[in-house]
Amino acid sequence: MSGTETPAANRLEQQLRFLREIDKLKAIVRRNWLLDGSRRENAAEHSWHLAVAAMVLAELAPNPSLDLGRVLRMLLIHDIVEIDAGDHFYYNDNAQEQHEQEKLAAQRLFGLLPPDQAQAFRALWEEFEDGRTPEAAFARALDRFQPLYANCLLDGGTWREFGVTRADIETRSAPLVQRGAPALWEHCRRLLDDLSARGLLPAERSSQASRTSEPHCPTCSVEREPSPGP
Amino acid sequence: MSGTETPAANRLEQQLRFLREIDKLKAIVRRNWLLDGSRRENAAEHSWHLAVAAMVLAELAPNPSLDLGRVLRMLLIHDIVEIDAGDHFYYNDNAQEQHEQEKLAAQRLFGLLPPDQAQAFRALWEEFEDGRTPEAAFARALDRFQPLYANCLLDGGTWREFGVTRADIETRSAPLVQRGAPALWEHCRRLLDDLSARGLLPAERSSQASRTSEPHCPTCSVEREPSPGP
Repeated sequence: MSGTETPAANRLEQQLRFLREIDKLKAIVRRNWLLDGSRRENAAEHSWHLAVAAMVLAELAPNPSLDLGRVLRMLLIHDIVEIDAGDHFYYNDNAQEQHEQEKLAAQRLFGLLPPDQAQAFRALWEEFEDGRTPEAAFARALDRFQPLYANCLLDGGTWREFGVTRADIETRSAPLVQRGAPALWEHCRRLLDDLSARGLLPAERSSQASRTSEPHCPTCSVEREPSPGP
Repeated sequence: MSGTETPAANRLEQQLRFLREIDKLKAIVRRNWLLDGSRRENAAEHSWHLAVAAMVLAELAPNPSLDLGRVLRMLLIHDIVEIDAGDHFYYNDNAQEQHEQEKLAAQRLFGLLPPDQAQAFRALWEEFEDGRTPEAAFARALDRFQPLYANCLLDGGTWREFGVTRADIETRSAPLVQRGAPALWEHCRRLLDDLSARGLLPAERSSQASRTSEPHCPTCSVEREPSPGP
């Protein structure tokens, strides 16, 4: 930018720089698969799907006066930090380290925006991470529900790949889904019961096995196709 | 669904069926490229990017009392019809035929939802298509701006592939961007001037050449890398 730019032009350039930078979210690959099993999902299309899910399922939030607009804004930006911090597999045990990386990422990425917007986006991201407002609780419930539902439809999906058990799900995902969208959790429970009954979801880890951040099949992240599901 | 399901369970099943179906938007490939030139963009991640752009650029809409929540909801669902109707290259001349296909798609896809939501989503999509409300005008301006901006950054991008001229852009995209976000159009005009000056954007089609829906290079949709851009 030259020194002759107006403040409005400088502001627009900062906004466009942010919008160019977040194009990279389309290259952040998550663990879970598309429902047709063709490839893993990226974080940008995941964010889109969650936001539409919020539009459709808002009536399931316990608080009837939910601000849907804020839920949407939160979901749209909640994963942008992954551009710097990478995708975090929910059942790994490095949550604190990951959160520190994400805080630095939030500072850099939202910091590309003009100061007032940087502050507003950062506050929205922190509200989501904190999870205490009704909007954040609902948004986090959907963020947990979506991969859980996909795994149920794909006969266990990434849980089978990465050795996740029913106990892991009940401990980590259940409280979040149940708090933000109780009726959705009831639905999940029935799907999980069905998976358990079909022998596709072990209750607990055997004493020898450990949960791993690497796929059971070392080549599966590149080539292996998941079960196509029902 | 069995006949013993409750109305609430039936409603949830309809909502989830819709959310499963729209997973397919992640496989609808658009003409334009990601900014790193690595691959073409899909319609789901495009919708996400537009929605975040609306959050960042809302202040550029001429109407200061814009309902940003409605803009976001419109942008999130505006391309869902492409699951049935496919992506429509904006500079093709089959707009009427495409619109008829999209109306049928809207009927089927939004019709998966419970009737009240089907009607609301359909109304939102029609508002976007119609483009008359301030929210729709702004949403449509962003929908035109995003690929235009990407093409400017990629030294002409899909315009060079498909033989689009400055006259095409001035006739078709300019009025939409100018109406919904005038300052954004001013920025685009400078970028287009720069492309023109560098000989990367012909003013008009030569008498022999015709705009085509096929890439100039017949293999480029599979293998060719676009110019990486600045």
